[in-house]
Amino acid sequence: MIDEPTIWAHLDALAKPQRSLGRLEALAVRLAMVQQRLDPVTRPRRIVLFAGDHGVVAQGVSAWPSAVTGMMVDTIASGRATSNALAAAQDCDLRLVDVGVASAPAADRPSWFRSARIADGTQDLSAGPAMGIHQFEAAWDVGADEARQAVAAGHAVLIAGEMGIGNTTPAACLTALLTGAPVEIAVGRGAGADDVAMEAKVRIVAEALEAAIGMDADPVAPLAALGGYEIAAMAGFFAEGAALGATILLDGYVATAAALVADRLRPGTARALIAAHRSAEPGHTAALAHLGLEPLLEWEMRLGEGTGALVALPLLDSAAALLSRVAKLSDLGIGDA
Amino acid sequence: MIDEPTIWAHLDALAKPQRSLGRLEALAVRLAMVQQRLDPVTRPRRIVLFAGDHGVVAQGVSAWPSAVTGMMVDTIASGRATSNALAAAQDCDLRLVDVGVASAPAADRPSWFRSARIADGTQDLSAGPAMGIHQFEAAWDVGADEARQAVAAGHAVLIAGEMGIGNTTPAACLTALLTGAPVEIAVGRGAGADDVAMEAKVRIVAEALEAAIGMDADPVAPLAALGGYEIAAMAGFFAEGAALGATILLDGYVATAAALVADRLRPGTARALIAAHRSAEPGHTAALAHLGLEPLLEWEMRLGEGTGALVALPLLDSAAALLSRVAKLSDLGIGDA
Repeated sequence: MIDEPTIWAHLDALAKPQRSLGRLEALAVRLAMVQQRLDPVTRPRRIVLFAGDHGVVAQGVSAWPSAVTGMMVDTIASGRATSNALAAAQDCDLRLVDVGVASAPAADRPSWFRSARIADGTQDLSAGPAMGIHQFEAAWDVGADEARQAVAAGHAVLIAGEMGIGNTTPAACLTALLTGAPVEIAVGRGAGADDVAMEAKVRIVAEALEAAIGMDADPVAPLAALGGYEIAAMAGFFAEGAALGATILLDGYVATAAALVADRLRPGTARALIAAHRSAEPGHTAALAHLGLEPLLEWEMRLGEGTGALVALPLLDSAAALLSRVAKLSDLGIGDA
Repeated sequence: MIDEPTIWAHLDALAKPQRSLGRLEALAVRLAMVQQRLDPVTRPRRIVLFAGDHGVVAQGVSAWPSAVTGMMVDTIASGRATSNALAAAQDCDLRLVDVGVASAPAADRPSWFRSARIADGTQDLSAGPAMGIHQFEAAWDVGADEARQAVAAGHAVLIAGEMGIGNTTPAACLTALLTGAPVEIAVGRGAGADDVAMEAKVRIVAEALEAAIGMDADPVAPLAALGGYEIAAMAGFFAEGAALGATILLDGYVATAAALVADRLRPGTARALIAAHRSAEPGHTAALAHLGLEPLLEWEMRLGEGTGALVALPLLDSAAALLSRVAKLSDLGIGDA
């Protein structure tokens, strides 16, 4: 067992003034703790994008129609979305998994696309449960399977990203449910909701939350009722990835809501997480604090698709290089200053 | 001429919610402005480390003796310093140039080491000018030559780093002189000065500044009197790199002091700069503000050796990929939301 004092002692013995790399050193400690080694690895790495639709979009919570989910899945599959661009720039393998997009899938897909559709989007969570328990578990299993495949292929760092118009509404529900944050904090503008949409969103989240809190004792029932296919899949991906010893770089608000779900159902999952960035969504801060995570970047990003994690990914490469490639003062015959 | 509205219009037309990548988009705009193209390039890239010693160390301004400069030059030359580790992790070519280290150079050096020694360190700036005008110009010319070599070799992004025990004292002098910042703000703890060293440092900077302000009309005279060989070389590197159209990623306090010098002597140099990080040194904020720069990271780094710039370097890769590899909504047949 490698503990934090051991890692700090290693860093403090390197040929540089002690603690002179500030937060890069804190990241190095986190990375070494997650991997339980003083020479952590950050390659190869994979992002898996999970896509799903949300019945609640019918209530006007989003600036975009559900059809855009399918269009963006097509764009990602064509290799020309933001996530593709950033993954290529940061040498990150990318997979795309449809777990419940409403629109009919195109016939022509790349080898890294997987169809694992549970349903044509969730039910409207403002009118009843978004998913049943079995549907939640089916989506979770798809995510867990993706984590197993990624680890089996040797990937050291895993990222989950999402595409799902309307999914900041279930994310707000889950964040309020699992952190106790007030609904007014948990609800943000997502990818551009206007004042009318915001008012509807706050009311819908508050009502759905009340209904979910009254549910029976099965811990999965409220998570299924308030969730989404891509969120359940990400939760399974995180829980299984963490159990298998992978390092998980956590994206923004929706991914973090999935991490809350994962850590609720598989306590300890949070120990494998490194938070990439603090989203522009106000509820994200509450979710990160609940998981005990301090994000690397505060860049007001709110795109989703795992893009915040992809931007932060190479910071891990620097932290790993610091730990494993720098000489110790003692090797150089220089005493401690 | 590509102006900022043109670049924002390009970003706003991409297949993503407008402005949803926050500060990554601001970085993309800066990068495109510097390179005057909508498909900026960030590879290949090179860091040049300039090393020199400072006579003022005899006054007790540093926690480390001057001999450590030579030891760290040896460590960099052996490939095992922090800067080597980070440069390797971020695919950045590295060169090391001795412009005035006090200790005798080792015989055995790698091909990417250059001896261009002007003197065995500067004179003590608390007792008189650190350098004469001709010495300053000789060091500037070495840096300018390194910039020309780097651009000739095809490098799109240039970084200058430094190694020089005691060099936050000249950096504080130059920052106070060129930005008008109070001495108490300009002076920080560098790589670990204690309270006694801090008191000496504030007094020495204030006195040296007063002497320099009274100097004759040659604009170089006070910059030479308060500077250092590695600072003058970095200033020449920045000025020439900017004139040749390179993008310059700016490291911390000492490098920024050199950028102040470069922009004073070659106005417009600042237009080629992207600030990598805000150093833990308090004077850095004043220096960045004077140059109109907003740093990418605030990670409390204060090592030098260009390490802050190396950590921030891959963020430029993401910004470039966003600009050049993402589809436009119009290409996908999706209207504006």
